[in-house]
Amino acid sequence: MKKEVLKVVKIGGKLIEDEVKFAEFLNDFVALEGPKILVHGGGNLATEIAGKLGYKTQMFEGRRITDADSIKVITMVYGGFINKNIVAKLQALQNNAIGLSGADGMSIVSKKRPLKEVDFGFVGDVEKVNSEFINSLLKQNITPVFSAISCTAEGLLLNTNGDSVAAEIAKAMSSIFETELYFCFEKKGVLADAENDDSVIDKINKEKYQQLLEEKVISDGMLPKLHNCFQALEGGVKNIFLGDFRLLKNESVYTKISN
Amino acid sequence: MKKEVLKVVKIGGKLIEDEVKFAEFLNDFVALEGPKILVHGGGNLATEIAGKLGYKTQMFEGRRITDADSIKVITMVYGGFINKNIVAKLQALQNNAIGLSGADGMSIVSKKRPLKEVDFGFVGDVEKVNSEFINSLLKQNITPVFSAISCTAEGLLLNTNGDSVAAEIAKAMSSIFETELYFCFEKKGVLADAENDDSVIDKINKEKYQQLLEEKVISDGMLPKLHNCFQALEGGVKNIFLGDFRLLKNESVYTKISN
Repeated sequence: MKKEVLKVVKIGGKLIEDEVKFAEFLNDFVALEGPKILVHGGGNLATEIAGKLGYKTQMFEGRRITDADSIKVITMVYGGFINKNIVAKLQALQNNAIGLSGADGMSIVSKKRPLKEVDFGFVGDVEKVNSEFINSLLKQNITPVFSAISCTAEGLLLNTNGDSVAAEIAKAMSSIFETELYFCFEKKGVLADAENDDSVIDKINKEKYQQLLEEKVISDGMLPKLHNCFQALEGGVKNIFLGDFRLLKNESVYTKISN
Repeated sequence: MKKEVLKVVKIGGKLIEDEVKFAEFLNDFVALEGPKILVHGGGNLATEIAGKLGYKTQMFEGRRITDADSIKVITMVYGGFINKNIVAKLQALQNNAIGLSGADGMSIVSKKRPLKEVDFGFVGDVEKVNSEFINSLLKQNITPVFSAISCTAEGLLLNTNGDSVAAEIAKAMSSIFETELYFCFEKKGVLADAENDDSVIDKINKEKYQQLLEEKVISDGMLPKLHNCFQALEGGVKNIFLGDFRLLKNESVYTKISN
C-alpha cells in the first residue's frame, strides 16, 4: 500500500519577523492538503529581548554560545511567545494546531553537545524523535508546531538547530509516511551564483551535489543546509524543496533535492 | 460502571518560585496514581521581566490590566519559560507530560471579557474546554500541564485566572471521569481565623459555606476561590481540596469541599 504523504515545513526566523510575508506563508501552509508539521526558527527577537534583559550574547567564531541566560530567553521567546502566537494564528485560520518543544511528549530527545575546544553550552543534537506520539496528533487532524528546542532524557532543555529538527522529524516520520521536507528561507533556492538571486538551481541530486561541492558553488551558509538535506534523503525522506516564503505555492521558483 | 478518578491540580505561582517546596510538590504530584492534570500560575517572574523590558504594569483598584505588552510577557514567561520547565522537570521524573496553552488543540476556548467601567485588556473568561482532546492525551498516559492562557475562536491569546482554568477543566472532564480538584496555595486550607495559619476548617459543604459567608469569616482573597469551588461542585466535580504545597501527601492538613 502506498504511504500517505506528510509535509514537514521549516520556516526561518527572518521570515517570521516579516508580518506580511509570514501571513502569506501561513495562508499557503493552511491550504496544504494532508497531514503536515511546522518547524519554526526564532529570528532576532531572542537577541533583542536578551539585550533588554541585560544578558550578554557570547559568541565564538561567529557562533552563538547558549549559556544559562540564553536558554532561558530562547525558552521564553521561541518556546513561548513565537510558538503560541503561530498556533493561535493557525487556529484563527481554522487549522487545528498544537505548539510543542522537544520536552512535550518527549517528542524530540537530544544529547547535550560534548565539549570540544569550546563549550557551546545548552545546545543539543537530536537523538530520537517520538514518531508514535507525533502521529497520534496527526491522526486527530492536529498540526504539530515545533520550536527548535529539544530535551535530554534527564529533562534538560537544549537549543537545537531548526533545520536539523525539521530533517530529523521528517526522517523519523518516514517509517509511517512518505515524507517531503520544505525549507522556507530568504532565498528562492540554492543559487548557482550567490550574488544573483535569480540563479536558482532547479534540481540537485547526489551527483550534482558532489559536482557543486567540487566547483565550490555552494557557499558557507548553504553547506550545513545541503548536508542536512542529503542526510535526510539517506534517512528515507523522499523529496526536499528549498525556496522563499512563496515555496508552498504551486507557481513558486525553488530547488528540488532528490535521489 | 464507576468512572475512573481524574485529579486536576492547580499550583499557585508563589509556590512555583520556591524551588525547595516546588521540588517536593512535583515529587508528590508524580507519585499520584491514575490520570492527572496540572494547572500552574505564574508568580512574580512576569512582573519582573516586564519591568526589565521597560513595560509599565497598569493597575486598577489593585487589579492588573493586561495590555498588549503584558500578554506578550505572559505568553513568554507563563506559556514558555515556566510551562516548558515544568514539563522538562516532569520528564526528568519519568512522568510523561505535555505543556499547553488554551490555543493548543483549542483546549481552552474563551471570550474576551467585555468592557465595563474599565478595560482589563487581554483577559478572557473560559467558554469551552476541549475534553475530548485532553482525554486523548490522558489515554496515552501523558499529563497535560496548562499555563493559564486561553484563546478565543478568533485566535486571540488571553490571560485567564488560573483557579478558573483548573475549575473549568475539572467541570468539563466530569462527563468522562469522576473529578477531584486540588488547589495548592500559600495556606494550609480555608482558615477560620485569617490571622491564625493553624485554624484550618477541615470540611465545608454548602450550608457551612453560607454560614461562613454570613459570619464574614471568609476574607477577600478566599471569596473568589470558594465561589469557584462551589461552582465546580455544581458543575459535576466530586471533591475539592485546598491546602499548601504538601496537599498531595496523605498526612497533609487541608480543607475538603463537597456537597
